[in-house]
Amino acid sequence: MNKPQVLKSAIVEVEFGQKVKVIEPVNLYGCKIGEQSFVGPFVEIQKNVSIGERCKIQSHSFICEMVSIGNDCFVGHGVMFINDLFEGGQPAGGNKGLWKATKIGNHVSIGSNATILPVNITNRVVIGAGAVVTKDITESGVYAGNPAKKIRNL
Amino acid sequence: MNKPQVLKSAIVEVEFGQKVKVIEPVNLYGCKIGEQSFVGPFVEIQKNVSIGERCKIQSHSFICEMVSIGNDCFVGHGVMFINDLFEGGQPAGGNKGLWKATKIGNHVSIGSNATILPVNITNRVVIGAGAVVTKDITESGVYAGNPAKKIRNL
Amino acid sequence: MNKPQVLKSAIVEVEFGQKVKVIEPVNLYGCKIGEQSFVGPFVEIQKNVSIGERCKIQSHSFICEMVSIGNDCFVGHGVMFINDLFEGGQPAGGNKGLWKATKIGNHVSIGSNATILPVNITNRVVIGAGAVVTKDITESGVYAGNPAKKIRNL
Repeated sequence: MNKPQVLKSAIVEVEFGQKVKVIEPVNLYGCKIGEQSFVGPFVEIQKNVSIGERCKIQSHSFICEMVSIGNDCFVGHGVMFINDLFEGGQPAGGNKGLWKATKIGNHVSIGSNATILPVNITNRVVIGAGAVVTKDITESGVYAGNPAKKIRNL
Repeated sequence: MNKPQVLKSAIVEVEFGQKVKVIEPVNLYGCKIGEQSFVGPFVEIQKNVSIGERCKIQSHSFICEMVSIGNDCFVGHGVMFINDLFEGGQPAGGNKGLWKATKIGNHVSIGSNATILPVNITNRVVIGAGAVVTKDITESGVYAGNPAKKIRNL
Repeated sequence: MNKPQVLKSAIVEVEFGQKVKVIEPVNLYGCKIGEQSFVGPFVEIQKNVSIGERCKIQSHSFICEMVSIGNDCFVGHGVMFINDLFEGGQPAGGNKGLWKATKIGNHVSIGSNATILPVNITNRVVIGAGAVVTKDITESGVYAGNPAKKIRNL
């Protein structure tokens, strides 16, 4: 019988601001989490991710490499970020030159179970629960659906 | 280097009926879970949630404050409940006066990866996998899509 | 006060190929995972599931009984598989005769937060993030949306 290599989720080489609160189990490594932010249980945040101040990253969310999030943002439960569009019809694998970045502004609130492809989202945006964001959002407002479209002004 | 406040997921002040089964890790606190119900791994259930008898809450689901679920219900994997509609374009934060309640009847089955905004759902309803429920459901039947619509009678 | 029966997620009776890597916590039991595959944190894989070689099963995914996955597949984060269509308007419960199987070919890449109902998917397919796959996919290509439709060739 083969035995797998088993590693444990952990908090490794994370740069925390003051007064951050984390509920384990989480898998956080090589990222930066600003002061007074919160990270709920069952969350994974990968290396080089930057999260601003006073953010809430709720349970069951996954934030991948090449994502940066501003201040006063809310990432709901079960939100998934993406950096690999499977260009060429398959995962980029180790070829990070094919990965794309996501930049989230300030005061952005993302509803639970939303999916965020690699995009830029401007300040003061609400993403509805269950939305799939496939394009840049350059105008403040409320966006929902699959694919996400603007449904009203803020 | 700042150190975060780290808490651990746990089972705290939960009122269990008889013969409940739970698979850890879970984060359950201040809620009520009726007899013969099941809670799978990687589940969070918040305070004041009430879950009836003979329910299954499957892995990866999140049930927030102000949700009550009847008897003989099935909550699939990765189902997210919501109590905050980001009215005013931002999370309610500590202002629970802005939160809204969800009430689920009896014999309701919710498919995996569904998202349930604050609504009432009557008895004997099926919610399709991946659906986003945005409005009250007052009539028994099968509902699916984003936003969820009735697709057939039961 | 009643005390629930509490079990812990674990790796139990799994047949691993060589050089498999797993990040705990996971709940894996009675399944087969081929050589050089990877399983991320917060994953559950149920009994009798078969996963091929060089696959990645990313964090937060759930793979249910009666699913088989070929070689060189990528299952994104928060992907949920389903074997019970709630026929008759309710879960099959213990009646596995009502469950349906899913068969995924080789070189299939499934985007994060996708939901896979019991279907067959042929080789060399990309499923977009957040898609809900409700029907068999017999032709290579890129599929997205709820319900998923073909959006382009590979």
